[in-house]
Amino acid sequence: MIRIGALKLKAQIFCGVESAIGPGKADLLEAIDREGSISAAGRSMGMSYRRTWLLVDALNRCWLERVVETVSGGSRERGARLTDFGRQLLFSYRDLETLLADAADDGRLNALLSLLRDRPLPKQTSLRSRNILD
Amino acid sequence: MIRIGALKLKAQIFCGVESAIGPGKADLLEAIDREGSISAAGRSMGMSYRRTWLLVDALNRCWLERVVETVSGGSRERGARLTDFGRQLLFSYRDLETLLADAADDGRLNALLSLLRDRPLPKQTSLRSRNILD
Repeated sequence: MIRIGALKLKAQIFCGVESAIGPGKADLLEAIDREGSISAAGRSMGMSYRRTWLLVDALNRCWLERVVETVSGGSRERGARLTDFGRQLLFSYRDLETLLADAADDGRLNALLSLLRDRPLPKQTSLRSRNILD
Repeated sequence: MIRIGALKLKAQIFCGVESAIGPGKADLLEAIDREGSISAAGRSMGMSYRRTWLLVDALNRCWLERVVETVSGGSRERGARLTDFGRQLLFSYRDLETLLADAADDGRLNALLSLLRDRPLPKQTSLRSRNILD
């Protein structure tokens, strides 16, 4: 997720109806790269192991090449890492986010954001109280 | 929501923790402009009147000026319309979307999208079956 002041931008790429990459999966790839383990990466993001694994599985099913590979073998060597393809995918996604952020951050956006209140007015408690029914 | 092939872009502007405008509210503003009525606009989008009204209320509470105004009076004249401010807000939001779409639609995006499968591989049915636990 890209934030420019009060603007949030979300870029998501789909493979059919499945999300192939988006802000959450990109953050997960970074966490796997850092932690060297799917379970540790999920924990660091406050996700269940099952949810983490489903995201990794989706990544590996949506792209032409494997994105995350696991290292099995002796117990001390088990772990996970990004493939070269996965690393390139993460780089390309972050590059797209940067491109969008640079494009958005112009005078027209600032003019629009200047029209926001500092905080919302209080919510109306009743439809009828505003006579807004039409 | 902007779509460029398999890419979806969502731009959302926040006022504090409330969404002040995003794809759904922009579509609603267009529907109100077309239908001349909050309830008809909501119906045309398949939303309940309550949900529609809450979105209109949020629009009117988040910006410095009123976005939607209702016309009360004789029963034949009741309705709703965008204020000049609301019309400018809608235009500026669509302008931002166009800016983002133009920026995203470049060779790097196409290179990334070319790495997607046509459809995802089938889901794995078991964590253990892939020996992916680490």
